[in-house]
Amino acid sequence: MRGWVTGAAGSAYDLDNLPYGVFSTPGTDPRVGVRIGDFVMEASAVAALGGDAGEGPHLAPVWAQAGLDEFLAMGRTVWDIAREWLVEVLGNDVHQPRVEPLLVPIDEVTMHRPFEVADYVDFYCSEQHATNVGRIFRPDGEALTPNWKHLPIGYHGRAGTVVVSGTDVRRPSGQRPESGGVPSYGPSRRLDIEAELGFVVGGATQLGEPVPTSAFTDHVFGVTPLNDWSARDIQAWEYVPLGPFLGKSFATSISPWVTPLAALTAARVELPGQDPEPLEYLRVQEPAGYDIDFEVVLNGEVVSRPPYAAMYWSPAQMLAHMTVNGASLRVGDLFASGTISGDERDQRGSLLELSWGGKEPFATPTTSGRTFLEDGDTVTLRATAPGALGGRIALGEVTGTVLPASQAGR
Amino acid sequence: MRGWVTGAAGSAYDLDNLPYGVFSTPGTDPRVGVRIGDFVMEASAVAALGGDAGEGPHLAPVWAQAGLDEFLAMGRTVWDIAREWLVEVLGNDVHQPRVEPLLVPIDEVTMHRPFEVADYVDFYCSEQHATNVGRIFRPDGEALTPNWKHLPIGYHGRAGTVVVSGTDVRRPSGQRPESGGVPSYGPSRRLDIEAELGFVVGGATQLGEPVPTSAFTDHVFGVTPLNDWSARDIQAWEYVPLGPFLGKSFATSISPWVTPLAALTAARVELPGQDPEPLEYLRVQEPAGYDIDFEVVLNGEVVSRPPYAAMYWSPAQMLAHMTVNGASLRVGDLFASGTISGDERDQRGSLLELSWGGKEPFATPTTSGRTFLEDGDTVTLRATAPGALGGRIALGEVTGTVLPASQAGR
Repeated sequence: MRGWVTGAAGSAYDLDNLPYGVFSTPGTDPRVGVRIGDFVMEASAVAALGGDAGEGPHLAPVWAQAGLDEFLAMGRTVWDIAREWLVEVLGNDVHQPRVEPLLVPIDEVTMHRPFEVADYVDFYCSEQHATNVGRIFRPDGEALTPNWKHLPIGYHGRAGTVVVSGTDVRRPSGQRPESGGVPSYGPSRRLDIEAELGFVVGGATQLGEPVPTSAFTDHVFGVTPLNDWSARDIQAWEYVPLGPFLGKSFATSISPWVTPLAALTAARVELPGQDPEPLEYLRVQEPAGYDIDFEVVLNGEVVSRPPYAAMYWSPAQMLAHMTVNGASLRVGDLFASGTISGDERDQRGSLLELSWGGKEPFATPTTSGRTFLEDGDTVTLRATAPGALGGRIALGEVTGTVLPASQAGR
Repeated sequence: MRGWVTGAAGSAYDLDNLPYGVFSTPGTDPRVGVRIGDFVMEASAVAALGGDAGEGPHLAPVWAQAGLDEFLAMGRTVWDIAREWLVEVLGNDVHQPRVEPLLVPIDEVTMHRPFEVADYVDFYCSEQHATNVGRIFRPDGEALTPNWKHLPIGYHGRAGTVVVSGTDVRRPSGQRPESGGVPSYGPSRRLDIEAELGFVVGGATQLGEPVPTSAFTDHVFGVTPLNDWSARDIQAWEYVPLGPFLGKSFATSISPWVTPLAALTAARVELPGQDPEPLEYLRVQEPAGYDIDFEVVLNGEVVSRPPYAAMYWSPAQMLAHMTVNGASLRVGDLFASGTISGDERDQRGSLLELSWGGKEPFATPTTSGRTFLEDGDTVTLRATAPGALGGRIALGEVTGTVLPASQAGR
């Protein structure tokens, strides 16, 4: 069954993908949509058609909401039933006459933030990234801190400033370190990106209830590419001893599309290897990695190709670690992998690393001498993974353009 | 005008206090209440009485909610009008016949978390605390990091695990550092408290819109004592380089009562003094400190009396710093001062400091050899401040009892 939607078969948004998002068209309210080919299916309206297509119809009111939140709250069993129903509705020709009128061309929709972010946690799971950053920020010490290979290091970020792809990002101002030890106030001079993968939590838990690695798919609905915009000068000055704060909290961009974990089954791979073996609560029994290829695109030119398969810590381990102390999960919790960087220079997921702290400017096909972001720069993260139908599925892009710093406060 | 409510005049919950909370009685839904003396006023029901008592009646539907969120969203002008109305209703004898039946004795109510926490930020504003912790955690370095006197250091905590006073706190498990460098898994051995003051944000802002120190009272509705439970062993192992995470995220307790800033006018005091003078965006023109006396009560015995007036950084500065990079505020944002510690040993706001990292056990009137929390310990934070009527007003208590670690995961 390859489906009846024009142009979908064999594309990056075929029946083996089916990401969810929240869209609107001029004059209509935001509601849940499912991407297929170059269309967005009106999920609630199709579900409301009823008929003999399984359990989908029960979800019509859930998908009429302006966010995925209610759907996320329903948990794994419903997510799986919904996917099965979608494949039937978009795959079986018998549904074409009724469903085709409810497909909206992708270029006619406005996409919105797909869910209300509860808590946002950012991890630091790439050994290559952590090593690079350690060398750049702490040249006199060990690159990896002693804890790094024992636990996936993470910290809480600002949930209220997670924005959807396409939102402009204003260059932040703040305290910048100066050579005399007295900071100056002004726009960040070292504005950066971080190419990451975000994980979207659905099934909530009670306080005091750790989530084992084996329950990962019960609590995580899907993934979204994520750009953790970073002001390296602000961050470098503020982060000791309590971690990044204003260097990160001005904006974090996510794709409007959440790709279900079920679409990534063919992308599962073994981790690169963990030595020392982690403590029992962090052990995984199955291929816990994901073979997802990222591209960092600066003003239309690919400047890096970070490989997610190179990540040291898996998302199941991030989740188990995040809850091992009894911290509860809420619907809409978002946790991200940390910057994805591979072994090669052109696989680094941040400009900090690509330019080695600004000391080694890099070139693109048409420019040279690039270090950190300039006003007007547009950064887009793209990602693809092996799909279940033999081709590659696309994760939704995340993009943003840098605006000049505000004059407020000066 | 000293009011008609029996026992309220001259008490710590007189007309100059009037904190807001969310309460229920058996068989009824949670709704907003205002504390007066030993009673909780049914705010919505009183507002619904209507009459000639000003603008209060418009708030009846807002106060019928199960949280303060809608009220917080209305902003300073409405907050001030509401307070004026409350003073009239509870102060002027003419209202007694209609309002008195809508006062519920405090011992008949159950209190709930007063609002949905959006983002939770924890600062580190006591010089004495930061110095003590620096000496204990980093004995070979400078106690204060070079940035400490230039900015109020802060980091994001977990909003989803902020619980209301009275919620038991289960001892967290996690990775504990061991002498050989390989961590062990198990219950925290160094469970601690942090006596803090929390600030509750009402007026939201747009992304990219810094809040100057002068706009503090436009965006902060009130305060609540806060206990930032901390697992010092987990924290010490995890916190380099990205800051505290699981050592804090298992629970943060707040009082059920939010005391309006308007009740703290008489408590305003000058800061102890800032040297060097902070950057312009952090400067304050008026008495920016608060003279609030805390008590840390362990199993019914006062073990410390932290003075909030000793804090180096003011809440207006915390707010300005938190938003200087353009980070937006949401209704329900909560930021906390960090542990309050004074110059004296018996003014330290954490057991880490009271026991100097466990090396100098302390005594209470009836026990000795105390260091960190034991299972079954109950910790209560109490706070009072000068009120506008010449006495002292009480901030709502925050209390919690330590439960043994869960056996899950072992």
